[in-house]
Amino acid sequence: MNPTSAPAQIIRAIDVIRKKRDGGELSRYEIDSLVNAYTAGDIPDYQVSAWLMAVVLRGMTRPETAALTDAMLHSGDVLDFSSISARKVDKHSTGGVGDKTSLVLAPLAAAAGVAVPMISGRGLGHTGGTLDKLEAIPGFNVNLPVAQFRRILETCGCAMIGQTAEIAPADRKLYALRDVTGTVESPYLICASIMSKKLAEGIDALVLDVKTGSGAFMKTEDDAAFLAELMVETGERMGKEVVALITDMDQPLGSMIGNALEVVEVVEVLRGEGPEDLRQLCLELAGWMLHLGGVSATVEDGKRQSEKLISSGKALDKFRQMVELQGGDPRAIDDPKKLPQAQHTMTISSPRGGYLASLKCEQIGTACVVLGGGRERKEDSVDPAVGIVLHKKIGDAVSIGELLATIHYNSEARAQRVGELLEASYQIADSPVEKRPLIHRIIGHT
Amino acid sequence: MNPTSAPAQIIRAIDVIRKKRDGGELSRYEIDSLVNAYTAGDIPDYQVSAWLMAVVLRGMTRPETAALTDAMLHSGDVLDFSSISARKVDKHSTGGVGDKTSLVLAPLAAAAGVAVPMISGRGLGHTGGTLDKLEAIPGFNVNLPVAQFRRILETCGCAMIGQTAEIAPADRKLYALRDVTGTVESPYLICASIMSKKLAEGIDALVLDVKTGSGAFMKTEDDAAFLAELMVETGERMGKEVVALITDMDQPLGSMIGNALEVVEVVEVLRGEGPEDLRQLCLELAGWMLHLGGVSATVEDGKRQSEKLISSGKALDKFRQMVELQGGDPRAIDDPKKLPQAQHTMTISSPRGGYLASLKCEQIGTACVVLGGGRERKEDSVDPAVGIVLHKKIGDAVSIGELLATIHYNSEARAQRVGELLEASYQIADSPVEKRPLIHRIIGHT
Repeated sequence: MNPTSAPAQIIRAIDVIRKKRDGGELSRYEIDSLVNAYTAGDIPDYQVSAWLMAVVLRGMTRPETAALTDAMLHSGDVLDFSSISARKVDKHSTGGVGDKTSLVLAPLAAAAGVAVPMISGRGLGHTGGTLDKLEAIPGFNVNLPVAQFRRILETCGCAMIGQTAEIAPADRKLYALRDVTGTVESPYLICASIMSKKLAEGIDALVLDVKTGSGAFMKTEDDAAFLAELMVETGERMGKEVVALITDMDQPLGSMIGNALEVVEVVEVLRGEGPEDLRQLCLELAGWMLHLGGVSATVEDGKRQSEKLISSGKALDKFRQMVELQGGDPRAIDDPKKLPQAQHTMTISSPRGGYLASLKCEQIGTACVVLGGGRERKEDSVDPAVGIVLHKKIGDAVSIGELLATIHYNSEARAQRVGELLEASYQIADSPVEKRPLIHRIIGHT
Repeated sequence: MNPTSAPAQIIRAIDVIRKKRDGGELSRYEIDSLVNAYTAGDIPDYQVSAWLMAVVLRGMTRPETAALTDAMLHSGDVLDFSSISARKVDKHSTGGVGDKTSLVLAPLAAAAGVAVPMISGRGLGHTGGTLDKLEAIPGFNVNLPVAQFRRILETCGCAMIGQTAEIAPADRKLYALRDVTGTVESPYLICASIMSKKLAEGIDALVLDVKTGSGAFMKTEDDAAFLAELMVETGERMGKEVVALITDMDQPLGSMIGNALEVVEVVEVLRGEGPEDLRQLCLELAGWMLHLGGVSATVEDGKRQSEKLISSGKALDKFRQMVELQGGDPRAIDDPKKLPQAQHTMTISSPRGGYLASLKCEQIGTACVVLGGGRERKEDSVDPAVGIVLHKKIGDAVSIGELLATIHYNSEARAQRVGELLEASYQIADSPVEKRPLIHRIIGHT
């Protein structure tokens, strides 16, 4: 009768903003309405940015966080791999320096019989990105249509691609707005962003690697644990098995930083070699993936199976197979010279003897970006060849003049800046320092 | 040398947002840059709305509030009446129901020799607006150019107009954004909005009437006092004499609500008649205006002078003169029948005997809006004739069937709704209730 009077259940954006501003708990319906209307372009950016700031400062309850994740997840396609009988398990890291575990874990878990449909991202800030690392392998294509992603997953047991336009479009739009409105730093919004994308992969279980320390986004263990608990609970509310490992990022993981260099180190680990910290973390995460993937009775058993798959060469074979199926040159796996090589190297030596006490991890990540190994702006291209090799890690003894690091570079000017950044990153102490544990805490799946 | 590297002192909106989000204190330069860039259209709405929400939830220090006020004030023209030798004093009310004191005070203070350059607003929400009341006088023009405003002020000692496009354009743009992003309710933003506009009037002193109670925007006395202190301190930091009276708005002021009806009551007060609460508040505010205007040694003396100007008819003569100079029909002052008249009246009677214990003041204001006396949307026109006359105030004894209120209306359907609203607004008690004081507190100018 009266076309101007709207039904009572219509949600007005202004009321949702006010409710969150005043510390109220939003209903699933209110959150759904806001996310759907924003994705459809029916609510302007200026209302959503005010709401995002209210969320940053007022927080969200667990049901609100789950509702936001769910709304973002269902803003686009949710992949369905139920035709694959193996359990689908993914691993997600919150990002760090030298963190190349995804490239080890996907083929390793697949070799054990777990299906790993992995959708990854690019480098962000000072951290590296899985897609950039994969693209260091000549020919490797991370931009596959979903049908081909599915075929490779069926054939090989693992496949690694980038975000598609159909997956969680609400997250893409919200993330772009958060980036320019100072609303990135909220565990609730970070949780919803990560979990909406991961749950859209059609997985049964998820292993989260939440980094903490000077090179992580979460600098303190408490902040990392808070985010981890939020993600575990959100995943469980949505019917998935989720575990989170709080792991150390107070120094780079492994010895190599830079896209092609990290592929070299991945192959070393898949050969049973490579740096101890990287090897241990890969085995721990693989143990969990195998356990949640239903192929090992315990995590310990999963680790033992993983070690066998490495020593038998099956994990490396699986990596070679995936590279080939995704268009990459498998010879680059066995011959590092077929990977992009920097033209020059420069070394950093210790100015004194003692023990390596600390490394400014974020600064080392930034140094790799400065070399061209990451992006200062979204539109920048990445130089796969450049990077840094660390010869010492925290706790190691060093003598005066001993090599600390080697810089692989293509631009003299950039190398000079990076040399200074690196020299300022090291702190050498007179007496031995205690090493931080690699794994700080395990959250969920108790 | 490098055109892409900006000078270090350039302020990025994102950094200002983050600083306020994290509870930091913004510098005058940061606030100036943000306000100027937004007014110029160089910063998008979505960044400013995130910043506004951070201000709502994090608050502002006194220097930040003064800097914001100053930046908004200087976003447009600041009037200069230094050619007028009398001290320029204005009064501002935070808004209420039946609050028509401005129409009494401008001519009353002008009759005493104070210059009153008053720039007022329209009704907002459930509250009435001075401009709407003035426009109930046939021919009265509130849209005068500044040159004419100045001439009338010089001739008559008072003039009353609406906001011009040249005054505080930053406030207009920010207010429109606050209105749709849930960021109206912040004392810091309210203070900057009010004070930037008032200080642009070129005044020497300001009397603030900060309303508190069920019909005010600030429901509690503490909230009203906080806003009052903020405005007094901000005005004083900017070199003005400012006093704030916290006054009662738990029931409508005076007996009449509605634009033409309120003009009738204004004339009653200027004749020395009218309801006691309205008369008392006008004398108190006039006492302060005369005192700050330098024409009375004390506030008490200012009140006595005001009473004499009323009993001598000089205050009413001044009102008549101002009405005539602004194009209004002065005969409407002496003959209320020349003001717009509603076609019908309807009465509300008491369902029981006892004492009037409380009135839902905001609901009565809303009832007047429903009748057409205010705007439900910005673009609505206002019916000057409609309104409500209250025959009883809180504390009055009532017998069963005695008249409580008379509704003046032009639409039967609207009158029915308003009748229900009004009936639900009254609470009658068995025993006498204590009346709230008219003036709760005086802040500043000690």
